[in-house]
Amino acid sequence: MRDVAVIGIGMSKWGECWQHSLRDLFVSAALQAIDDCGVSRLDSMYVGCMAPGLFNGQEHIGPLLADYLGVTPIPAVRVESACASGGLAFRQAYMEVAAGFSDIVLAAGVEKMTDVDGEAATYALGTAADQEYESFQGITFPGLYALIARSYMQKYGLTVEDLAAVAVKNHSHGLKNPRAQFQRAITVEEVLQSSLVADPLHLLDCSPITDGAAAVILCPLRKAMKLSKHKPVKVIGSGHATDTIALHARKQLEFFYSSAKAAEKAFQMAEVTPQQIDVVEVHDCFTIAEICALESIGLFEPGQAGKAAAQGITHLGGKLPVNVSGGLKSKGHPVGATGIAQIIEIVEQLRGTAGERQVANAKIGLTHNMGGTAASTVVHILEAC
Amino acid sequence: MRDVAVIGIGMSKWGECWQHSLRDLFVSAALQAIDDCGVSRLDSMYVGCMAPGLFNGQEHIGPLLADYLGVTPIPAVRVESACASGGLAFRQAYMEVAAGFSDIVLAAGVEKMTDVDGEAATYALGTAADQEYESFQGITFPGLYALIARSYMQKYGLTVEDLAAVAVKNHSHGLKNPRAQFQRAITVEEVLQSSLVADPLHLLDCSPITDGAAAVILCPLRKAMKLSKHKPVKVIGSGHATDTIALHARKQLEFFYSSAKAAEKAFQMAEVTPQQIDVVEVHDCFTIAEICALESIGLFEPGQAGKAAAQGITHLGGKLPVNVSGGLKSKGHPVGATGIAQIIEIVEQLRGTAGERQVANAKIGLTHNMGGTAASTVVHILEAC
Repeated sequence: MRDVAVIGIGMSKWGECWQHSLRDLFVSAALQAIDDCGVSRLDSMYVGCMAPGLFNGQEHIGPLLADYLGVTPIPAVRVESACASGGLAFRQAYMEVAAGFSDIVLAAGVEKMTDVDGEAATYALGTAADQEYESFQGITFPGLYALIARSYMQKYGLTVEDLAAVAVKNHSHGLKNPRAQFQRAITVEEVLQSSLVADPLHLLDCSPITDGAAAVILCPLRKAMKLSKHKPVKVIGSGHATDTIALHARKQLEFFYSSAKAAEKAFQMAEVTPQQIDVVEVHDCFTIAEICALESIGLFEPGQAGKAAAQGITHLGGKLPVNVSGGLKSKGHPVGATGIAQIIEIVEQLRGTAGERQVANAKIGLTHNMGGTAASTVVHILEAC
Repeated sequence: MRDVAVIGIGMSKWGECWQHSLRDLFVSAALQAIDDCGVSRLDSMYVGCMAPGLFNGQEHIGPLLADYLGVTPIPAVRVESACASGGLAFRQAYMEVAAGFSDIVLAAGVEKMTDVDGEAATYALGTAADQEYESFQGITFPGLYALIARSYMQKYGLTVEDLAAVAVKNHSHGLKNPRAQFQRAITVEEVLQSSLVADPLHLLDCSPITDGAAAVILCPLRKAMKLSKHKPVKVIGSGHATDTIALHARKQLEFFYSSAKAAEKAFQMAEVTPQQIDVVEVHDCFTIAEICALESIGLFEPGQAGKAAAQGITHLGGKLPVNVSGGLKSKGHPVGATGIAQIIEIVEQLRGTAGERQVANAKIGLTHNMGGTAASTVVHILEAC
């Protein structure tokens, strides 16, 4: 197995991009990644996308996007694992390079969500839950995460102010990220005064509907120095795991078993401990998700992450900065692209080029990307060279 | 890179399975594959499925199916490349085992197409074409393949009787396959008297709407002898390539460039020539597709496959038996499952357990699985051990 590095990154500003199609968004990000490292060829590509059939009436996006990027006849594989599709695309690309099947591989993610109205978008997102046992009964993702939040609150005494503190922190980070969908500071009061979507979750506890894409380029570490003008960032750990898709079948709601297993594998492979992680991007599709994720992947003990944002521990400048990109909450959440954008943030942090968001002396970073209510999780650990 | 073998296969009868859900179909095939080889654990799984969001209101089927099979927390990856999704799932599983990331991997395909009516199914299938330049203009797949057929007819003098001969042959093969959707003989006259769907293609030139699943289990060749009660079948070649998704951008319609590139790679890797292939499963979504595919992958010279079925060359007992399973035409075409069913047919042929369909002395077999109008193709070459 060969060591693998990320040598190129590309991502435009996320938001409601009505002037850009699915293919425009992808090509823009992919060309930026190619330009970032300056490679002249791709051997293969992966793209994570959750529901282009429902959002855009378009499946078969592997060849579609390869064609639009002008790189046919290379293999182009679309992978889907709901909101973890981007992380999964990165993992599959990593394996292909590590194994020696290909040298230069593009891993991208894209989702164009505003081609449909809010109701249709809610339906499309609901297909990440169990259609027969959850979605068909009328529950949507805010409802499912509200159940998780209630379970955590009853077990550990979490307050709605603690939840709101996560959103406030991530918005304060997004303010420093020019690519973030929302670039404005919010307060705990504003979160609590926003509409109640599914008690205890308010509108500002939820990540938004977003159009966007992100792309990175991987190659063998040995070639990275020659190929790229940037300091390569090495992939040292990768883990992917699954859990029951329906919440009712879980032993506990507030601990994400797939996240725990994926992290366990990534840490084993990387041969590092949770204490060595300097900067983290976790999947905060809802404020409660950030808290549960941090505990499930072993960065906090169960029950200990609930007040981490309120106490400043997970802020930029705190003991363990979490979601300095703004997270899904502020940067936006074009579902298939999110996992790749997490990788991009960690690469910039480890390159030392994150500007106002730079975490001092960041050497090792972790990404946690999950699908649905953590029925699937992909975790990666990256290290500065 | 390790040698890889197929050690288990599983598939139920295909057809209109109103009594079985997407997950039922998958689990049935997967359990048969597990039972066929008798392994007690899976390390990872891949599933090819084209459009569960549109057909069943369900995405995120990796963990859904892993959960229903009872194998969480193993990684479960859904891949999609329209009608080539199954072949792609097999290729990704092959790469994971060859690379040494996992030892025992399930590769499956599934599509449950009869949960929606004909119009909705046509829409869902149309998402494999270019939504903006083809589908939105009103053309569907029979129309696109009719254009290809017209182009071939004008160039090489093909007749509608030659096309019909492909359907007649594949139905005669399907008659010997207990898992085929259609088990009845048809005549050239019946094909020509069936409804004209898109001139020159009649209803009986077209593969049907089908519910079905198929699953195989791969492992390193070295372990295959110990693990399975069957003679292992070795994967000796694998190729995947893409082309423009829209037909208007192609230099010629009747030659599938992605198929040519995928086959070229598979033959190079296998170190065999087209003349050494004993049995072939190609993607006959329409009768014209079988003809173009055989030429594009190099088994016939351009213009030479048109009369092969009419002349008996591609019949069971002929010089090069093609689609002895019945092909998509007679066996059925649950899009995501088709590529895996092709592998299963070749495995049975190379094991020598194909019964009435057995090709005498079959040692090397090839599968050709393509998406849309060949915007993507996956080719595999397998060899008896």
